[in-house]
This record gives sequence, structure tokens and C-alpha cells, in this order.
Amino acid sequence: MTLKDRFDCVSPIDYRYGDEEAKTYLSERAFVRYKLQVEVALVHELCRRGVCSGAVADEIERATSQVTCQEVYEEEDRIHHDIRALVNCIRARVSDEAKPIVHMAATSYDIVDTANAMRFQDVVTHVFLPNLDELTRELREVAIREADTKQIGRTHGQHAVPITFGYCMSGYVARLAHLSDEVEEAAFRLCGKFSGAVGAYNSLSLFVDDPRAFERSLLENGCGVRQSVHATQIVPPEFMARFMMNVVLVGGVLADLADDLRHLQRTEIAEVGEVFEVDQVGSSTMPHKRNPINLENVKSMWKIVMPRMVTVLMDQLSEHQRDLTNSASSRTYGETIAYVISMMTRLTRTVKKLVVDRDALQRNLNATAGGIAAEPLYLILASLGHPDAHEVVRKLTRTAREEDRTLWQAACADASLAPYLERITTEQRVMIVDPTQYTGIAEQRTREIVKT
Amino acid sequence: MTLKDRFDCVSPIDYRYGDEEAKTYLSERAFVRYKLQVEVALVHELCRRGVCSGAVADEIERATSQVTCQEVYEEEDRIHHDIRALVNCIRARVSDEAKPIVHMAATSYDIVDTANAMRFQDVVTHVFLPNLDELTRELREVAIREADTKQIGRTHGQHAVPITFGYCMSGYVARLAHLSDEVEEAAFRLCGKFSGAVGAYNSLSLFVDDPRAFERSLLENGCGVRQSVHATQIVPPEFMARFMMNVVLVGGVLADLADDLRHLQRTEIAEVGEVFEVDQVGSSTMPHKRNPINLENVKSMWKIVMPRMVTVLMDQLSEHQRDLTNSASSRTYGETIAYVISMMTRLTRTVKKLVVDRDALQRNLNATAGGIAAEPLYLILASLGHPDAHEVVRKLTRTAREEDRTLWQAACADASLAPYLERITTEQRVMIVDPTQYTGIAEQRTREIVKT
Amino acid sequence: MTLKDRFDCVSPIDYRYGDEEAKTYLSERAFVRYKLQVEVALVHELCRRGVCSGAVADEIERATSQVTCQEVYEEEDRIHHDIRALVNCIRARVSDEAKPIVHMAATSYDIVDTANAMRFQDVVTHVFLPNLDELTRELREVAIREADTKQIGRTHGQHAVPITFGYCMSGYVARLAHLSDEVEEAAFRLCGKFSGAVGAYNSLSLFVDDPRAFERSLLENGCGVRQSVHATQIVPPEFMARFMMNVVLVGGVLADLADDLRHLQRTEIAEVGEVFEVDQVGSSTMPHKRNPINLENVKSMWKIVMPRMVTVLMDQLSEHQRDLTNSASSRTYGETIAYVISMMTRLTRTVKKLVVDRDALQRNLNATAGGIAAEPLYLILASLGHPDAHEVVRKLTRTAREEDRTLWQAACADASLAPYLERITTEQRVMIVDPTQYTGIAEQRTREIVKT
Amino acid sequence: MTLKDRFDCVSPIDYRYGDEEAKTYLSERAFVRYKLQVEVALVHELCRRGVCSGAVADEIERATSQVTCQEVYEEEDRIHHDIRALVNCIRARVSDEAKPIVHMAATSYDIVDTANAMRFQDVVTHVFLPNLDELTRELREVAIREADTKQIGRTHGQHAVPITFGYCMSGYVARLAHLSDEVEEAAFRLCGKFSGAVGAYNSLSLFVDDPRAFERSLLENGCGVRQSVHATQIVPPEFMARFMMNVVLVGGVLADLADDLRHLQRTEIAEVGEVFEVDQVGSSTMPHKRNPINLENVKSMWKIVMPRMVTVLMDQLSEHQRDLTNSASSRTYGETIAYVISMMTRLTRTVKKLVVDRDALQRNLNATAGGIAAEPLYLILASLGHPDAHEVVRKLTRTAREEDRTLWQAACADASLAPYLERITTEQRVMIVDPTQYTGIAEQRTREIVKT
Repeated sequence: MTLKDRFDCVSPIDYRYGDEEAKTYLSERAFVRYKLQVEVALVHELCRRGVCSGAVADEIERATSQVTCQEVYEEEDRIHHDIRALVNCIRARVSDEAKPIVHMAATSYDIVDTANAMRFQDVVTHVFLPNLDELTRELREVAIREADTKQIGRTHGQHAVPITFGYCMSGYVARLAHLSDEVEEAAFRLCGKFSGAVGAYNSLSLFVDDPRAFERSLLENGCGVRQSVHATQIVPPEFMARFMMNVVLVGGVLADLADDLRHLQRTEIAEVGEVFEVDQVGSSTMPHKRNPINLENVKSMWKIVMPRMVTVLMDQLSEHQRDLTNSASSRTYGETIAYVISMMTRLTRTVKKLVVDRDALQRNLNATAGGIAAEPLYLILASLGHPDAHEVVRKLTRTAREEDRTLWQAACADASLAPYLERITTEQRVMIVDPTQYTGIAEQRTREIVKT
Repeated sequence: MTLKDRFDCVSPIDYRYGDEEAKTYLSERAFVRYKLQVEVALVHELCRRGVCSGAVADEIERATSQVTCQEVYEEEDRIHHDIRALVNCIRARVSDEAKPIVHMAATSYDIVDTANAMRFQDVVTHVFLPNLDELTRELREVAIREADTKQIGRTHGQHAVPITFGYCMSGYVARLAHLSDEVEEAAFRLCGKFSGAVGAYNSLSLFVDDPRAFERSLLENGCGVRQSVHATQIVPPEFMARFMMNVVLVGGVLADLADDLRHLQRTEIAEVGEVFEVDQVGSSTMPHKRNPINLENVKSMWKIVMPRMVTVLMDQLSEHQRDLTNSASSRTYGETIAYVISMMTRLTRTVKKLVVDRDALQRNLNATAGGIAAEPLYLILASLGHPDAHEVVRKLTRTAREEDRTLWQAACADASLAPYLERITTEQRVMIVDPTQYTGIAEQRTREIVKT
Repeated sequence: MTLKDRFDCVSPIDYRYGDEEAKTYLSERAFVRYKLQVEVALVHELCRRGVCSGAVADEIERATSQVTCQEVYEEEDRIHHDIRALVNCIRARVSDEAKPIVHMAATSYDIVDTANAMRFQDVVTHVFLPNLDELTRELREVAIREADTKQIGRTHGQHAVPITFGYCMSGYVARLAHLSDEVEEAAFRLCGKFSGAVGAYNSLSLFVDDPRAFERSLLENGCGVRQSVHATQIVPPEFMARFMMNVVLVGGVLADLADDLRHLQRTEIAEVGEVFEVDQVGSSTMPHKRNPINLENVKSMWKIVMPRMVTVLMDQLSEHQRDLTNSASSRTYGETIAYVISMMTRLTRTVKKLVVDRDALQRNLNATAGGIAAEPLYLILASLGHPDAHEVVRKLTRTAREEDRTLWQAACADASLAPYLERITTEQRVMIVDPTQYTGIAEQRTREIVKT
Repeated sequence: MTLKDRFDCVSPIDYRYGDEEAKTYLSERAFVRYKLQVEVALVHELCRRGVCSGAVADEIERATSQVTCQEVYEEEDRIHHDIRALVNCIRARVSDEAKPIVHMAATSYDIVDTANAMRFQDVVTHVFLPNLDELTRELREVAIREADTKQIGRTHGQHAVPITFGYCMSGYVARLAHLSDEVEEAAFRLCGKFSGAVGAYNSLSLFVDDPRAFERSLLENGCGVRQSVHATQIVPPEFMARFMMNVVLVGGVLADLADDLRHLQRTEIAEVGEVFEVDQVGSSTMPHKRNPINLENVKSMWKIVMPRMVTVLMDQLSEHQRDLTNSASSRTYGETIAYVISMMTRLTRTVKKLVVDRDALQRNLNATAGGIAAEPLYLILASLGHPDAHEVVRKLTRTAREEDRTLWQAACADASLAPYLERITTEQRVMIVDPTQYTGIAEQRTREIVKT
């Protein structure tokens, strides 16, 4: 398979959406590098146990550092086995004394599963979380800046009662902060293994007295990943599934936020917008258009990553001590992570350019001519003992609409309500006359949430 | 929609696979009952804050206990709103003084989300986990019983190197024990809410000074569920998604186990079997058949539940302070839980009837005429300094196959190996001559794993 | 499993969303009835071939008509085989002479697969298509009524260029009409089978000379379904998968339409609305709300049915002459069909109540103060030879926005455009000055599309 | 995004599994080329309608042939719009007279949707179908070669009754031949469009009298794709969904076949095998292993492609005249096609190396010591009037098993059966004594099926 440049690629993650930094951990070259690292960790552990000398271990480490992805693939073409190919490439570079030590007692997936845990932890630490934190920080700033910017709350696409725009944003801050912790935890619970072809330490038992201790030291000290309680040829898949699930859940929050922001950019709503670059074209044919393409792209990438949980969940099943039907499929997990990283960076760029139109917010708040006062009116009437407040106010909103007046006016015109209205406090009347005040503790909560 | 008996149902969970006990928490009747419980918890909390008297709270609780599912649905038919219908049914039974207190300051999803958290916690505590524990207990017993029962390990469906059958079972014990903890934790992290129509405590702020404290007390003391950091009209969906994910992961392990056991029942393998009941029919046309239908059913139900994670993940997105497009879909989550419970009870029944055929295990261990000794032979040669042991043994296995002798015989006939073979220890030779001994620490690990 | 009423059900299709008529074909009772019909068709075919007498065939038919679902399930509880249970229930009612003829030469899935093809064809013919046609008819009426009702076209949620509301609706008419044909064709390509336990007509070959002809006659004449070219124990799954796919695609169009209509009901857009019933409650706490709950429910049900394609696609794989892991899962296909029927009837109800607000349509058309003229202006300038029309107009829209005038005004103020503008025809100027005229052939196409 | 070689890629389709030929149609470079082709077809159609001269059309075509993917991406980086970037690259190369003609009256998705239909049709014609045909041809050969090779039929993994191996293969031939037709038809029903930004031919109506005729000619003559009845900014998604569905269904059959073949390679079954290359390594640690990795890879790739139907089905929904949330996601459709092509070529390679072990087939046929005669025995007894043949034979199989004799021996020892057994014909007895003869019309059907 030749490749002149990225445009020979079929996958959009390779020719279009991929993040350069993420590739450092998720490309095939990186994967091979991580597998070589596990082989190196192994010889050092063997050395520590006295199976080989330090000189041999160092020789193998030096040889390993020279192995290239290209030659591993060429050797694989010859022998049709990817890990044995990698092993042969190391062996070809070392003395006869060192040869038997390379890959000693290891099975392929001791190397592969451990390498996956390592690189996914690294990409989380060095790319995923820092990018997620940057987005959260931007959102936090918007939330604080707009903590008291009143906005109509919408449920079912209909005006409900007011919140503040900052409060809306603080929700995303809370959800992403929560998921940031979960992704981190899930990444660090990813397990490696070194228990051999069927998980029973058959081969290792030939050489060391306590193969569990050997594995633990190799994994924890040599590779920085956990040991699992049990393994077959592969580590139990639940840890990876949970990790991928949390990655996909991050994607879901990003898509939800993108959806919100692009709906708020609808021509009729227009409460937020993006600063457009001077040269930016919105449409190939409609020169006036300013399309929220980054937000749409974020949503679209969610449609790429979310269904891939099905692949992960199918990989949970593996016959007996394992079949290999998770081999090609698990190679796509890195793509999923890369897409979610791409979603983050796009959203961060968009949030940085986000402008809030206070006039539009006010205009929309007033759109129902006080109809949104229905809830406080009903509740205050109820609290004053009206036995049927919800039904009375429901009808009142119809009347107000038909007679084209505000709900407060309609209420005042209803004689049956007089005994209640005369007992209303000033604060209560304010909420009904100007229901844009009816924002509960939105501002206070915004500040509390973004602080945590 | 009339229903004469269960055979009028369309869903197999209702006419065929449902568990009677699970229905106590997951049926629509149960769901309505939980929603009524939240309404009761609310009036008691209002009473505690002095908004209403204890007499009123008690009156409402009494009235609520009389409301039936049937009448709620009839009222809904009239007014087209499920929660208002429920509220009306309570209100119809109380005095004018109590009427305004019913559902006071609540929005529908304060009730619905909280009720869902409650019933899912309850079904986990009272049905899911006990059933899972029973299955794990049965598996644990099998694991201990068969801790040293040698079995050929299989990778790619090919004979690899030996384990013990108990070790294989201990893997499922470990995975299920892990998931049992995860499901429990996820269930108890499910959040309720009482922050009103858009999550900003708009309505509650009219009546109480510290709406967060009111909500916390209502949820924790009144309903036994957690308060979330932020909410819109609904609780953040990530907690539910994670809970459902863990439920589905349990389903995956059960399917994996079912797959293993039914493959081990293949006519040619026949290492395990189920005690067949005297009257049990295996096939409508082939009277000799003994089909592993329960195991197949478990796998088949996994194909029902697993894809439903996509529904859950789509419900993660909700426009602005929420759209209602998660309403019908989230009603199906209970089904998913019910199916996984059904999978457990079937598997438990099957594991209880499981018989292990030691003759078959031994026959299969011997099937490759010692070919499975290739790994220990290669490793021992390597440890003795042979620079090319893997390749030599790979070719030796071809020779042995072609000349129809054991690998050990072929090795002894190869003069180039003599310098190494003469240095082999007795223990090492045993592993190669009788590779069924080559089980690593399978037995020891089995006992350690099932103990934890 | 006892069932007092529908509220004991766990699945919303059984307690809430199911359509009474669909249940006639999709309930378990109906399924058992169809399986019995296949058994009857079999004995009549056996009679036709001289294997049994007409008297015996009639005796079995009479007996079969008395078998109840309840007794079949009771017998299954005893012998653990559903089809053998059904056979036993028939056999228990006939003479010793007739007994051997019941189910003769059949394997269970000869009965089950054939019954599924029959009932799905029937539910399509009698419920699915008539309901889909009713919806399409309603949409067609709206399309004709509003064929020339101008509406701003929206892409990316942004105002693009105008269409008519009728044109928008005609798109759904076209898509549903197309799918109606596809669903019908796919239903009538569903295959039955009568080739026995492994598909090679092993048993039938014992009794008849041309088992293919026997099967064809039984299926086509006796059951009204097709014969497949090849079968194992089961019919090739691709026909069912394609049928389900088309059912799910109908669901997708319904969801798309529901999404459109509910966004058009957003408070700020408000171009369409639903006539609300006098007693209808929109929110349990906000008496003014008029939520598009039926539309939201349609979308939500799509989230239920769409992922179930994954179940269907997983059922495409079956080991060797079949495993049974599609048994429980394929029992849920009827649910999917039932949900899509429910989606249709809900949408039909909503479309019947649909009102179009022409004032709102006009207001929205004018919202960008002529900005939507950018496309015709650019194109007309280009057609007049302006080498850089798109870029010029793109900048002009910025200027117009900043200077708060219409695009036409801004264009006239730009001296560089004068040489082009003076050559503009009257019709062209109209399009730019009043871009609401710029609807292409929307009206004409609407009328053409809905006629076909 | 820099790319040194394929190992910088993240997606396995780019660094590992992609087919060189498929890339000719599915790479990003190819996609850009197809989009340029649509632009060329447009100017020629404009020329045909007299909107521009032939010289201008030719000038634009020449210019277009020089545009590179690289420069399009660079221009996109500047203006943030992919299609306008492409247009600019053409425009930069033509005279001022030609400039306005480039992309005239087109909207981006007139180009994109049409280009997708074109390239998917081409990859189907030139790569997908030829590869599928090659696989089918190989399978057909195996089917004919093994048309009368008896094999035990397996249901539930249990021995059922015999078929021939050729008959088993003929089933895959039939299914793939069917799908080959369906994929081809679906590909040629893919629609292009040229109806502008909102599908109402707004822009085209400015220049031509019959925009539908213009579009039809452009699409059918210029691009070789169909015109759809209705469009918004995009073509109705159902055609693409159906096409992708059929592609994924092909993947399902390939996975099913791969599963079958790899289970038949299980050590205990070993009825088929692959010729191993002399240098091929089966395991990095177990030198004796011969793992069916290609078959496992095929199954694994199915787990990649199948869930992606969810992406396609989500793309069915698009708000109003379209949102752009299908943009990134639809870019992955080509990957799905590429994976299925890769699955085919792998399977073809494997089928070419497939060897059938007749000894193993015979050994397995005899494994139940005649137990598989239960079906013919039951049916023959029934046909001779035994009223309870199924039950009698069911018990007989238990007895035979317990007493370790064949079913025929057990039957002969049962006095109650004597009246029936004495009436058995010679042919019937053969079937019971040697049930391997009981293959129905497997051989005949194999020959008939593979001929069609």
C-alpha cells in the first residue's frame, strides 16, 4: 500500500480531521513503538530476575530502538505474523546470546494489550485531558462572564421560564469536569498482562517462581499499567469498554453543546454567534450565509464515534481463551479517541469566538409578552390557597393570547382572582409583571458550579 | 389497549422472558407507584419547611396510596399529560386546603427522573445483584470443584496450551464480581432532581430560602437518591448512561460465558453437558438432539440488549433545557435491565445442571499427540541458549505432523538439538513429554481468584 | 408470568404505545395462530400428494383451530420445546391415524420462518401500508393547500433562499411514497421454507419425489409466501434484514418530519402549530406551555427502533446449518414494526391538526432584510460577466449588515456594480428587491410530485 | 497534517487493510477528482443550453484537469469552505470571461452528492463486484468439487442430519449472488442532484426554462447518475442508506462464511484447513499453531462495518432543507466500502487455499454412532402409522446412548417396534443403518444452485 501524501487516505481522520499531537500516540508508528517498549521492559524484568545479564538487556534495548515500522511490516509480509515479525526485527540485531532472551516467555497479546493500555493512558494524559481542560476553561470563562445574562429557558423548543446564559454554560462545565475525572480514572484502570498464551502463566512458570510478582513488577514498574486479576490470552475487556464508553460520553456532551449553540445561532433566535473571519466563505452559492460548520462538524463526528461503541461491545465476547476476532476491530479504537479530540479542539476554537447578543436575548425573553409568568402566577396563587391554580392559569393564558394582553393584565381582569392577588407581596408581583426576573438561583449556582 | 392475558403482548419480555420479581420494580404499575412516592416525599419535605401542616401532608400521603394506575391513564386520556394526570388523581382525593400543596413547585421530570433513580436502585438491590450473586456463587463452586481439572486451552479455536476448567470458570467469576461492584456503584450514583422546569430552582425559590438544601433533603432523606451538581429540566444523562453501560456489560459477560459453554458442548468437543430432563425435547424433528437452548437464548438476548446502548447514548443529547425526545425511549431502559436479569436466571439454571466429562477433556488434551508441547520445548531450548528455538520448533511440528510422531520424538530424532536436550532437567522433560502438565499456575490462581 | 392488566407490562409497546390493530398480527397469540396455520397448510399439502386422506387433513385442521396459546405454553413448560409443544397440542386432539401426519417431515423453523413471513406480510398489508397511506394522504393535502405558501428555506438552521411550505411537505410525500413501495416489495419477498432440519430436504425426500415442488406448492398456495433458492435450517436472513431495514427507514423519515415540524413550532419561529384541545395540559408546572409532545414522541420512538437494526444485522450470522442465537432476538422484530406503526398514527393525528401561520412565515421571510437576495444577486452579476461576483456580494452582505440596509440598497450604492446593475432585467430586479419571489419552481414541483 | 508514510496514519484502513485499487475511487484525492468532474459536466451542460460558448467550456475543463488536491486544501485553509475552495482553484486558472461560468447556479451539495453517487457506482463496478464475483466463482468451484462430499449438518453446534459440504458452500454462493445483484441495483439507483441550495431550482430557474430537464441531462448524460424526484439541499438519504445496507449485508455473509470455516478448522473438527505457507508463523510463542487469522480478520472487520449502519441511519435525519451534520460522518462511508472489499479479497485468498479433509468428515459423520438416524427412524415409523414415533425414538436415543449401541440396534431390540420395522423398505433401512446416506437432495440442489 503506497501513500504519496495524506490525500491517498480513505479515512477522514487521516486526511482531514486528525490532530497532529494525538497521532504521536495513535498512529501505527506509535503503536509499534509502544510494543517495542513492552519488549524492552520485559528484558529488563528478566534481567532483574537473573534470567539474563544487564549487558544482554542493554544490547536488546539498543537494538530495539533501531527497529522501524517499515521493516516490521516487511518481515510480516514474509511470515504473516505481526508480533513475531517485530521480534525477528529485534533478534536480527542482537548477538546469539541475546537472541533467546528477546520476547522470552511472552505471547503476542502480552505485548499488544499492554502497549494499548500504555498508549491510551499517554494520549489521555498528554492530549485528551489537556484539550478537554482547555475547552472547560473557556466554557467556565463564558459562564462567569454571562452568569447573570438572562436568557429564556427552553423546553420542547418552547419558551419555558428564564435562566441565565452562564447557568446554561455551567451545566456543560459540570458535565465535562465530571467526565474528565471519569476518563482519567478509566484510563488508569486499563490493564496490561503478562500471563502468556492462555493466561495461566504457563511459560513464565518455567522460569520464575512467582509469575504473578514478575508480571506485576513488569507492568507497574516497567510499563506503568495495572495488572488484572484474571486474564485469558487477553485482558478482560470490561476495562477497555468502560474507558471507551467514557470517551464516547465526552463526545456526547460535546455534541449536545454543539447542538445547543447552533440552535441558538438560528436566524430567528440569534442569541449567540461566531466572529467570522474576514475571508471566510459561508456557502458556495449564498454569499450571505454564516453557517455554524464547526458545530455541525462536531455533531457529525459524534455520529461517527457513538455507533463505534457497538464495535467495542461486540469485542467483549471472545471464544474460550480468545478468538482473534477483536484484532482488526480493536485497531479502530484509537480513531474514536482521535475524533473526540478533534471535536474538542473545534469546539474550543468556536467557544473562543463566541459572541453573545444581549439585544437578541432580551427580545426573545419578551417574545411571549409575559406568558412565561404562568408558572410563578400559578404557584403564587396556589401558595395563597387557590385550590385550582394550575387550571385557572392554564385558561388565563389562552384568554391572554386571544385578547392580546399580558398574563398579568388578564389575571387582574379576572374578578375571581382578586381575593388572592390582593395578598400578593411586592416581590411576588415583580416576578409576574416582569417574569424575566424569575431566574431562581441561576446566577448563584453558576458561580458555585464553575468554582468547583 | 386491552389485554386479556400475556399472549396479547407484542414484546417477548412481557409474554415470555420477563422475571416476576423484576416486574415488581420495572412494570408500568411500579413506575407509577414510584412517581407517587416522590410526590409524597415532596409534601413531607414541604411540611418539614413549614409550607404545609403535618395533617395536610398525611392527608396527601393517604390519598396518594389510593391512586391506581388505571385512573391515572384515564385522566391522561382526557388531558394528554401523564404527570398532571397523576397529580389530578391525588388532588381529586384531598381537601381544598391540601390541593395546592400537591406537586407544589415541582416540574414533571423532578418526579420522573427521581422515580427512575429510585426504582433502578431498588431493582438492582433486590433482584439484579442477588441474582448475579447466585450465578457467581454457582460458578465459584464449579471453579473450585474443577480447579485442577486439566483442559486444553483454545485460542483461535485451535489447541494452544493447557489450563484447568476451573481456571476458565474463575475468569467469569472475576469479571462478574467486578461488574457487580460497578453496577452497584453506578446505581447508587443515579441522581434525582428537584430544581424545576429549567433546573434553576425558579419555582422553589419562591417558597424556600435554600432550594439546594431543600432538594438535597428531599432526595437523600425522602427518596434515597443523590443530588446532582447541575440539572436542566432533567438530570445530566451521564449517570444513567454509565449505569446502563454496566448493565449491558454484565450482559456481555453472560453472553461470553454462554458462548463458551455451548461451544464446549459441540458434539466433537463435548467437554461439558447439561443434565437433560426426562421429558425434555431437543428438536421437533430430530429426537436425538440435546440443544443448548438456554445458552443460545442468553446469547440471543445479548443481541437484544447490547444495541440498546445506542438508544441510551442518543438520549444523551437534549436541546437547550431539554427536548422531550428521550421520553418514549427512556421508558425502554427497564426492559434492558429485565432482559439481563432473565439472562442471569437462565445461566444459573444451566450452570446448576452442568456436568463435566473428564474423559472428553482428556481425549481432547491428547488430540494433537503432544503438539501442544511446542511452546515449552521452544522456551526451554531458548533458555538453554538455542539462538533460533522458535523457528526450529516450528519446523519440527511440521515434521512431526508429517511423520506422525510426537513432538518429543521428533525433537529427539533431530541431531542438532542433542546438545540442548541433554541439558534438560527432569521437570522440563516432563512438560514436553506430557504437556498436559504444562498448566502454569492455573490451579493456584483459580483458588486465589474465587476466594476474593 | 401472571398479568392482571397492561400495567403489569414492562415494555412500553405493551402498556402504552401499541396499536390495537397491529397486535392482531404481532402479539404472541397471533404468532401461535400463524404457526398453526402453517401446520394446517402442511397437512393439506400432504393430502394433495396422497400421503394422507382428506378426512385426516380435515380432522387435523379442526383440531388445530381449537388449540390455544395458553395450552401450548403449558405443554412447553413440561417439555421445554415450543414447536413440539404446539405439535403435541394438535396431536392430543386427533385420532391415532392422524397423529403421525401432524408436523410430518417438518422441522421447527419450517414452521416458524414461514409463519413470520406470513404475519409480517399481513401486518404490512392490513396495518402498516394503510396507515402509511393515510399519513401520506394528509401530507399530500397539506402540500397542495400550501403549494404556493412562501417559506424561507433553511440550511444549517440559517436562512438560505425561499421555498414554499408545500414544497417542503412534498419531499416527505415523495420519500414516504417511495418507501411504501419498498416496504411492500420487501414484505412480499420474505421467504418461507420447508426443507427440514438442515435445508437439504432430508426428511421430505423420504416421502415425496420432488421436494422442491412440494415446498413451492405448500409455501405459495398454502401460505402465500415465497420459496427461497437455498436454506439451512432457516431461510437466508438477507430478505428479513432488507424488510426490517425498510421499516426502519420509514421510521427515519417520520422522525425527520417530526423534527422539522417541531422546530417550526419553536417559539421564535412559530410557522406551524397544532390545534390544542381545550382540556389539554402542556406542562405540569407551566400552564402556558404547548409542547409538541407527539412530534417529540415520534422522534423518541425512532431512537428505539433505529438501533434495533443492529440486532437484525447480528442475526445475519448463524453457525453452520444454524445456531439458535437468533431465536429470542428475532422475537423482537414485531415490536419494531409496531413502534413504526405507532409513529405513523401519531404523526397522522398531528398533521391533521396542523395549522400554518402565514403571518409568521412572512415575518420570518423578511427577517434578514433582503439578505437572502445574495444568491440571485451574485448569480445575476456573474451571468452579466462580473468575474468576481461571489466575493463582491459576500462583502456586500457584510456592509449591508453593518450599515443596516438591504442588500439591494448596498448594491446600488456600490459604484463598481453600476455597469452590471443597469443591464439587469425587470424580472431579475424583482428577485433581488423582493427575494421572497425567488422560489424557483417550488410550487410547480410540489403539484407534480404529489400527483405521482 | 503531515504524513511521512502510511505508518503515520491512525486508521487501519489506511495503514494496513486498504485495497490499492479501491483507493482509486475512495481516497480523498479521488473524491476531489470526482467533484471536479461534476464541475466540468456542469459547464458542458451550460454550453449545451447556450449559457456559455464551447470555447469557455473547454477552457474550464482544461483548467480543472490541472487542479490538485493539495491546492484545494490550501485554499480551504484560507477561506474555510471546501467547495468554494475547489471553485476558486478552477477560477484562478481561467479567463475573466470564463470565471462566472465556473460552478454557475450550483450549490456545494449539487457537486458533493453527485460526486458521491458517481464514485460509489464506479467503485462498485470496477472493484466491489469484480472482487465479489471472484470470491463467488471460487466458492462455486468448491461447491461443485464437493457437491457429494458428505458432511454432518450441525444445528446448535450439535450433529443434526447430513448434508454435503458442497451444499453448504452453495448456500453462500446463492446469498452472495443475490447480494451482488442488490448492491449493483442499489448503486445504480444512487441519485445526484442539481436543484440548488434548497432543492427548488431557485438559481437554475434564473437561467434556464426547464431546470428539471437541465438537471436530468447533466446528471444522466454528464455524470451517469439518476435524478431524484425531490431534493432539499441534498438528495433524499434513503437511496444511500439502502446502498450502504446492501454493502453491509455483503459483509455479514462474508463474516458468516468466515465463522463457518474457522469453526470447521477447530482442532476437534478439522474438516477443512488452509494450506500454510512454508514460512508462515502461527503464533509468536506457540510454534505449532496454525491460526485461521484471515477468517478471524474477516469477522473482525464485520464488527467494524456493521455498527456503521447506525451512522448512516442517523444521517437520514437532517433539519429543514438540511443541516450539515451529515458532512463529516458521510465521509466515512467510503471506509465501510473499502473494508468490505478487503474482507472479500482475504476470503478469496483463503478459499483458494482451502483443503477439505475427507477422513475428518467421515470421522465426524460417525461420531454419534448412528444417533443421527433418529430423524429418519422417527419419520419412517410415523409414516408406517406409529402414533407416537417422535417420543418413542427420543427415548430410544437415550437407551442407545446408555447401552452404547447404535440406534438401529436399539430399535431392533425394542419388541414394540417390530410390527413397524418389518414393513420397512430396503431404501428406508439403509437410511437408518447408514444415516450418512440421509442427505436428501443436497447434491442435486448444489448443482442446480451454483448453475444459476
